Amino acid sequence: MFDYKLLQAFHMVVTTGGFEKAARELFITQSAVSQRVKLLEEQMGQVLLSRTSPPRPTPQGLKLLKHFGQVSRLEQDLKADLLPSSEQGFNNLALGVNADSLATWFPKAVTPLIRTENLLLNLLVDDQEQTHRFMRQGKVQGCVSVQKNPLQGCKAGYLGYMEYRLLASSEFTAKWFPHGVDSRSLSQAPGVLFNLKDELHTKMVSLVLGEKPPTMPLHHIPSVKQFNQLIADGLAYGVLPDQQAGKRLKSGLLRDLSPGHSLRVRLYWHYWNLKSGLLERFSTGLIKAAQGELPV
Amino acid sequence: MFDYKLLQAFHMVVTTGGFEKAARELFITQSAVSQRVKLLEEQMGQVLLSRTSPPRPTPQGLKLLKHFGQVSRLEQDLKADLLPSSEQGFNNLALGVNADSLATWFPKAVTPLIRTENLLLNLLVDDQEQTHRFMRQGKVQGCVSVQKNPLQGCKAGYLGYMEYRLLASSEFTAKWFPHGVDSRSLSQAPGVLFNLKDELHTKMVSLVLGEKPPTMPLHHIPSVKQFNQLIADGLAYGVLPDQQAGKRLKSGLLRDLSPGHSLRVRLYWHYWNLKSGLLERFSTGLIKAAQGELPV
Repeated sequence: MFDYKLLQAFHMVVTTGGFEKAARELFITQSAVSQRVKLLEEQMGQVLLSRTSPPRPTPQGLKLLKHFGQVSRLEQDLKADLLPSSEQGFNNLALGVNADSLATWFPKAVTPLIRTENLLLNLLVDDQEQTHRFMRQGKVQGCVSVQKNPLQGCKAGYLGYMEYRLLASSEFTAKWFPHGVDSRSLSQAPGVLFNLKDELHTKMVSLVLGEKPPTMPLHHIPSVKQFNQLIADGLAYGVLPDQQAGKRLKSGLLRDLSPGHSLRVRLYWHYWNLKSGLLERFSTGLIKAAQGELPV
Repeated sequence: MFDYKLLQAFHMVVTTGGFEKAARELFITQSAVSQRVKLLEEQMGQVLLSRTSPPRPTPQGLKLLKHFGQVSRLEQDLKADLLPSSEQGFNNLALGVNADSLATWFPKAVTPLIRTENLLLNLLVDDQEQTHRFMRQGKVQGCVSVQKNPLQGCKAGYLGYMEYRLLASSEFTAKWFPHGVDSRSLSQAPGVLFNLKDELHTKMVSLVLGEKPPTMPLHHIPSVKQFNQLIADGLAYGVLPDQQAGKRLKSGLLRDLSPGHSLRVRLYWHYWNLKSGLLERFSTGLIKAAQGELPV
């Protein structure tokens, strides 16, 4: 058997981003953490951690981390089975979720499950094209993703879709797109991206133009609320899902820059195929709740 | 003189997180990007980029990136000076800001400046203890930070403070803290952190207890809105600034778990000391607006 005390130290260094922080979390000294990681590397005969700042796991280290996460999940399930409910602790669940889901349907779907399953959530947030990386790296036990096919060792279920449109305020539309959306107006009008990894904007603009978009002046605002506010304030145009723009679009505060053009992003729930009772119940509950919140 | 076409390719690889994305942004082939970076390394006689995924600059690379950013800033200022205003493009400004500022005073202070200075913002968001790293790495030209003293080559100004308190809903308080906040109740009640780098929670709890806190069950929710919602829903307690909790605290929806204990976090604006007219005007405007929004 592996020495799980060593794996725990290694896991903590990676998740906290440093030996010092890991030491604090584990209530041991920094040099004890360092020794445990070194010993683990000797036992495995592999370098598991590159000593960068923050330290990052090697590909071999990632495999070990994923294994550690799976064993932890199964241990927690067993405890819930063995202990009387009054002595049961919380169930830790690390999940990957895209920012637009977290800002719309996800909390409503998850809140009842936090109560019934006594969960402690650790959410990692990224673009819907990126969340499955957390899964591959073993950092999360489940994630919302645009990937349809389950990763190796995982199951996947359909959640529903989000429909994105190219939107701006009336004032902004009149100023920057008086003759509609074309290559010339797009090269001049300020748009807004969530972050550099946000690929929806380019996809949407390519769809509207029917060709490769020009170089566009773009803000980068990695906050859903401020992203929306910038568009509402007439400072930029941008791509928004109906779940966020719906009311403002109906009331006329926002205008669809290219009616008839929209991008449908289908979302899937991926989770470890572990025969973990908790993860199965959580996933079933989440998928059902999502399908009630999102169009399918 | 340096060949800035090479520096631009290097800069783009780092900011977009890959050779392929950099190629797309620059409208050149991936192998052209790769050649430019290699040539730059040969000219400098230094390894500038570690070819990880995503690629990361070496310490030597970071220095070059910072220089590139400063030259870009000065170039933009010059253009604004030389060109008639009708031909002037946008002024790109990369800024580091903490999530709590972005959710409260920052947008109100910045929105008028976006209009008057014709800005395109690139915001990088992190904890207020971490934002100055963006500055050191040359990724941003200004940042909101808890650091008081200016970094080398920078200026700093005082913005005001945010006052943090330990809060929970009445229902939550009655259930988990019937006899007040102590080591035992804190080891059982679920709390919420913004992310793993969030050190305010530990500081606040240490202040209330007067000793090192126990191991605490904690959610990690890296979204200001959902962080607040979890507390409002009675699913966790947490540390909130008055700017976010004020109304709910006054109306009795939230309760102060330890009246009389609060943490005052002073915020400072740091920016490159570049004699850039734009950066000076922006900084003066931001500091003035912040002091109108925040207590000083």
